[in-house]
Amino acid sequence: MMITQPALKDRSLLGLKELSRDEIESILNRAAHWEAQKEKLVPVLESHFVANMFFENSTRTRFSFEMAEKRLGAQVLNFTAAASSVEKGESIYDTVRTLESMGIDAGVIRLKPSGVLQQLAQKVNVPLVNAGDGNNEHPTQALLDLYTMRKAFGELKGLRVSIIGDILHSRVARSNLWALQKFGADVRFCAPQTMQAPELAEHAPYVGLEEAIDADVVMMLRVQLERHKHGLITSAEDYREHYGLTEERASRLKPSTIIMHPAPVNRNVEVDDAVVESAASRIFPQMANGVPIRMAVMERAMKL
Amino acid sequence: MMITQPALKDRSLLGLKELSRDEIESILNRAAHWEAQKEKLVPVLESHFVANMFFENSTRTRFSFEMAEKRLGAQVLNFTAAASSVEKGESIYDTVRTLESMGIDAGVIRLKPSGVLQQLAQKVNVPLVNAGDGNNEHPTQALLDLYTMRKAFGELKGLRVSIIGDILHSRVARSNLWALQKFGADVRFCAPQTMQAPELAEHAPYVGLEEAIDADVVMMLRVQLERHKHGLITSAEDYREHYGLTEERASRLKPSTIIMHPAPVNRNVEVDDAVVESAASRIFPQMANGVPIRMAVMERAMKL
Amino acid sequence: MMITQPALKDRSLLGLKELSRDEIESILNRAAHWEAQKEKLVPVLESHFVANMFFENSTRTRFSFEMAEKRLGAQVLNFTAAASSVEKGESIYDTVRTLESMGIDAGVIRLKPSGVLQQLAQKVNVPLVNAGDGNNEHPTQALLDLYTMRKAFGELKGLRVSIIGDILHSRVARSNLWALQKFGADVRFCAPQTMQAPELAEHAPYVGLEEAIDADVVMMLRVQLERHKHGLITSAEDYREHYGLTEERASRLKPSTIIMHPAPVNRNVEVDDAVVESAASRIFPQMANGVPIRMAVMERAMKL
Repeated sequence: MMITQPALKDRSLLGLKELSRDEIESILNRAAHWEAQKEKLVPVLESHFVANMFFENSTRTRFSFEMAEKRLGAQVLNFTAAASSVEKGESIYDTVRTLESMGIDAGVIRLKPSGVLQQLAQKVNVPLVNAGDGNNEHPTQALLDLYTMRKAFGELKGLRVSIIGDILHSRVARSNLWALQKFGADVRFCAPQTMQAPELAEHAPYVGLEEAIDADVVMMLRVQLERHKHGLITSAEDYREHYGLTEERASRLKPSTIIMHPAPVNRNVEVDDAVVESAASRIFPQMANGVPIRMAVMERAMKL
Repeated sequence: MMITQPALKDRSLLGLKELSRDEIESILNRAAHWEAQKEKLVPVLESHFVANMFFENSTRTRFSFEMAEKRLGAQVLNFTAAASSVEKGESIYDTVRTLESMGIDAGVIRLKPSGVLQQLAQKVNVPLVNAGDGNNEHPTQALLDLYTMRKAFGELKGLRVSIIGDILHSRVARSNLWALQKFGADVRFCAPQTMQAPELAEHAPYVGLEEAIDADVVMMLRVQLERHKHGLITSAEDYREHYGLTEERASRLKPSTIIMHPAPVNRNVEVDDAVVESAASRIFPQMANGVPIRMAVMERAMKL
Repeated sequence: MMITQPALKDRSLLGLKELSRDEIESILNRAAHWEAQKEKLVPVLESHFVANMFFENSTRTRFSFEMAEKRLGAQVLNFTAAASSVEKGESIYDTVRTLESMGIDAGVIRLKPSGVLQQLAQKVNVPLVNAGDGNNEHPTQALLDLYTMRKAFGELKGLRVSIIGDILHSRVARSNLWALQKFGADVRFCAPQTMQAPELAEHAPYVGLEEAIDADVVMMLRVQLERHKHGLITSAEDYREHYGLTEERASRLKPSTIIMHPAPVNRNVEVDDAVVESAASRIFPQMANGVPIRMAVMERAMKL
């Protein structure tokens, strides 16, 4: 019997919408293996070269990938492009082809324009891992979110998860939605009208804030108010008052509810300072969980 | 009999003008060795430290060097300086002396002002590799160009090579000219008048575009129109019409002609999109060849 | 008998003011060990991950730390944040907590606001090494300065050390003051009135320039004239005339006097060009000494 290598496209991770529940589960399980690993450096990818290609700034996400890659012994090259020179998808394509030509084994890529990543993946011959594309998907973030929920509750089935904030611009909300529903979780959105994504309404209901915080998981999103100059809510104070997880609101959560946020948090806007640091908060554990998740993802992308 | 180490200056690579044909050939041959090497990581430079000092932005060239260095197991430190703080050669000198004092074994250096590199090399005691200095030389680019031509045609002697575009500002054109002529290639230039370098006219003839594209190698250069505001050709459309390798022109090339470009290409300005991706194009193979060339160069610079 | 690991706080290096003379001496001695080491790569920290977190630009200092870390075989991740996004201590705290959550074993940190580092060190659970905080302390710089003086004179006791220039803004002056006095050195300051730090006057006398240059060590500080628009000395020429170590003044130094500067030097402002390169100058040796000093400091921070 021949053992076939997984096809190249099966090594890429472009989004969770197209990924099967089994595939997601196997990544979560492999992350648990890596989290349990006592050795920090396990060089299973020693002769493998990975390029972290960040066409949109994000030192935190890049750092998490780099940590994961280096813990597996991979050779890491960082490529950061000033936004100005890569506004056009054309130029992103040429850059990725360039790095591919130079012999990388996988590329981690973050970019602003939505839809470009799918085209890229069809044109290049190395596995690509999505580190955030436009407002489309951010699969490793959602994987670490699922991992964090599974650790807290044992399983995802039946969990009520409320995602609160700027749904419209959020790739984190989308990746979580697609993945959580595969596991039978009950996803709800909560957002001021100008931050709602109409096309998602058929997939999950929009509810008021009081209903939203009655959940197992309260996931707050980062808000960028400069994107919403024409909405009703234009100041940080307004946002906190109407959609923030204040200390007062946090005090009314069920004792078992956990609080999440993809970070960085605007403290005292989306989440009050004391709530970030409270026992219910999983915000720093989420960051910790990102590393084993990305180890599992990069191993899947590169290991023969 | 004593075996003497090559002198320090013989380990530097400042330009191809001063390098002998034999030296160039031995680098090309060593690159072929590295290209044939199946193992991606061959740590012959494991305890060696190299600084990539880029005083002029170029993530692509830096990436290619870093790839080459890491494939040889070297320890790589990247140093990038904002243009503003290093306009003066003085300050470049102090930076290089600083990194030298810290114990690097070799420095890869890219800088804007012409002539500074030669002075530097006389003042510091580590091998320096030129990754592009002003409009003077870009030796590793020309080496990978020669390597690409040799792969396509077997030998360089007698090859007709046309270099088309902004000769005036091109270190690539200069390095190719000096190197190709050592091997008996027939180099021609083609450029609008404002982009011609008068001092090179005694070394190679300027010809019209139709004559230029009747060649074994058609090497297109990157044009930066903002440098030529007072010429007759001031728009991308004009440039393409008069000097671009359009699909129509490419269709009239000899079947054996190969198309080259140091990249990044301004698609549909110097070279039409479809031509970049055509079978005659060696643009992506050039990038691939850059890695073994730079492995040979860095090994020569550092290996005892 | 149980052998206890040093407490976490004893692995941090926040400043020299609080460090005992014995601790300082043991770092200097360990640096001598590393300087004598012939092997460039001694991977005693192979499975250790360090983050160089620079919230204030300094490629030179970052490079020196990276060199030290890599010579010890550590895994190095560089994190540089644009000043704009980290003006607030809050955001620095979140970044450090983030990197801590991701599993770093130590952090090297440089930041602008004074006092933030002390707070950080109380809140996070990884050793922190100060690579320069505001105008408070720059302990590794002072350690390499002491090391350089000890190499030149054998011991520090009784040495007359004059620190000349912008004392007010200088963390280098402060760290040197605290450390040198523990060893019984005789520290003096010399500065125009607008560059004096009144709170330091009780620790060391301010003297005139002629008295200052009659010393064993003449340590010149970098001046940033744009900080002193309202002083009497507002031009580089004025500064050189009244406080610069000109060739003329250097010619009157005792033959045994050494000249130091934390670099980068404004040549012909603080120190004349020829004086920088003179035999009495220890400016480049200081940079060389920085690497073994930082090896000793990083080993202390991370090695079990």
